[in-house]
Amino acid sequence: MSPTLTFADAQHILAAGLAKADEIGQPMNIAVVDAGGHLLAFGRQDGAIRASIDISQRKALTSVLMNARTAALMELVQPGAELYGLEQTAGGMVAFGGGVPIYRDNELVGAVGVSAGTVEQDITVSEAAASAANG
Amino acid sequence: MSPTLTFADAQHILAAGLAKADEIGQPMNIAVVDAGGHLLAFGRQDGAIRASIDISQRKALTSVLMNARTAALMELVQPGAELYGLEQTAGGMVAFGGGVPIYRDNELVGAVGVSAGTVEQDITVSEAAASAANG
Amino acid sequence: MSPTLTFADAQHILAAGLAKADEIGQPMNIAVVDAGGHLLAFGRQDGAIRASIDISQRKALTSVLMNARTAALMELVQPGAELYGLEQTAGGMVAFGGGVPIYRDNELVGAVGVSAGTVEQDITVSEAAASAANG
Amino acid sequence: MSPTLTFADAQHILAAGLAKADEIGQPMNIAVVDAGGHLLAFGRQDGAIRASIDISQRKALTSVLMNARTAALMELVQPGAELYGLEQTAGGMVAFGGGVPIYRDNELVGAVGVSAGTVEQDITVSEAAASAANG
Repeated sequence: MSPTLTFADAQHILAAGLAKADEIGQPMNIAVVDAGGHLLAFGRQDGAIRASIDISQRKALTSVLMNARTAALMELVQPGAELYGLEQTAGGMVAFGGGVPIYRDNELVGAVGVSAGTVEQDITVSEAAASAANG
Repeated sequence: MSPTLTFADAQHILAAGLAKADEIGQPMNIAVVDAGGHLLAFGRQDGAIRASIDISQRKALTSVLMNARTAALMELVQPGAELYGLEQTAGGMVAFGGGVPIYRDNELVGAVGVSAGTVEQDITVSEAAASAANG
Repeated sequence: MSPTLTFADAQHILAAGLAKADEIGQPMNIAVVDAGGHLLAFGRQDGAIRASIDISQRKALTSVLMNARTAALMELVQPGAELYGLEQTAGGMVAFGGGVPIYRDNELVGAVGVSAGTVEQDITVSEAAASAANG
Repeated sequence: MSPTLTFADAQHILAAGLAKADEIGQPMNIAVVDAGGHLLAFGRQDGAIRASIDISQRKALTSVLMNARTAALMELVQPGAELYGLEQTAGGMVAFGGGVPIYRDNELVGAVGVSAGTVEQDITVSEAAASAANG
């Protein structure tokens, strides 16, 4: 038996991310997916770039498929590193920060992906959103 | 100066759709896009089929690209009819009901797409959501 | 908390499908996916056509995304019917028989897809495989 | 008359790979393809990341298309090296270890691809699987 992420959970996680984005003054695209990588909730704030509609969802999906934060992949996909070329597999993955897996009872139940700011801002907001999953 | 759909508008439209879905007892996927067809807000309720994550967004996009309700396309894409094959253009469109364009001051500002119920249910919820755009 | 399909379950389901294919004398492609539509186990018997590598997996995925047997979709996607054009959504779905969802405790935990014979043969084998999920 | 890989061979190769993965304690995705690069058998063990469903199959396909171990490509695709950009050709190839071609009577008859561990683990399991082809 596995724990799951409900739509109410996803709305709560999304709201926490949107609030953090407001707090740091950077409009964001925020996507929440389930354990299968399928979209549950999404929001794009006024002024957030539209490329990040895809990037935020792809970050969340990458976190599910790799069972890892996307920020952890950056070093591994560099020229000369072990997984050089990884982003071109699995339909296209993202190796920069802003995707964070969500766990319950030590099982992966979904992920959040955030994009539109600097990578540091994306990470800040994605961590705030993911933390809300357990709040 | 063009009227536009804000993220607050999109959240309001999405909430109206979710409320109508609750009212009729059919969990839905609901997508709101801007005048460029780019996703603004999305929600998938517990129990709604996952094929409709894509279908709801594609209905909204089709409404923007065709500047029409998707239900209005069904007759036109039948074998022998004028636009037979239309669904295979523009990256893939949807010709069954549930996509509704949103106007302000007679200008197209976005669309809502709803999917997961019967086509009749999808239409009911999409009309309720689109109506909220002017509420 | 949701029930899940293990790799051992998937191997058992696949074996049941392969045995039924042997019994009816039609080599098959058989795919088993989890609740998120992700491949768990696959086998292609000698003589089975290779187009069905994709078709069997797509049938299994369609069953998960639609939460339905693929055979149930055929009527709905005909010209003039409610979901005409459905197969062109969600990355490409299949509306002919051979995809069967698998449930545990009334929850969708995965699906099996079978392809390479006549549709009737595909259905026979997919039903045998899915039945083994509860055996 | 060309030697070929039967489904029984593929099952034997897959089983050898799964056994080696168990032995080293790293759950894996393992794919076996024929001389045309078409999937014959596949298994994903409990706990193996889902990105590797695609990566394992892509490694096997790359080994067939390049008639080489994927590990041998890594040096060649680096910035400044001879085949820089190779991974973006032929529908997407993989240049890190874990794909091994299988030969019979000096003819290429297929390949195995393994993914989900470290590259070193992937190579260990893929070599064990490929060795079983001649066992």
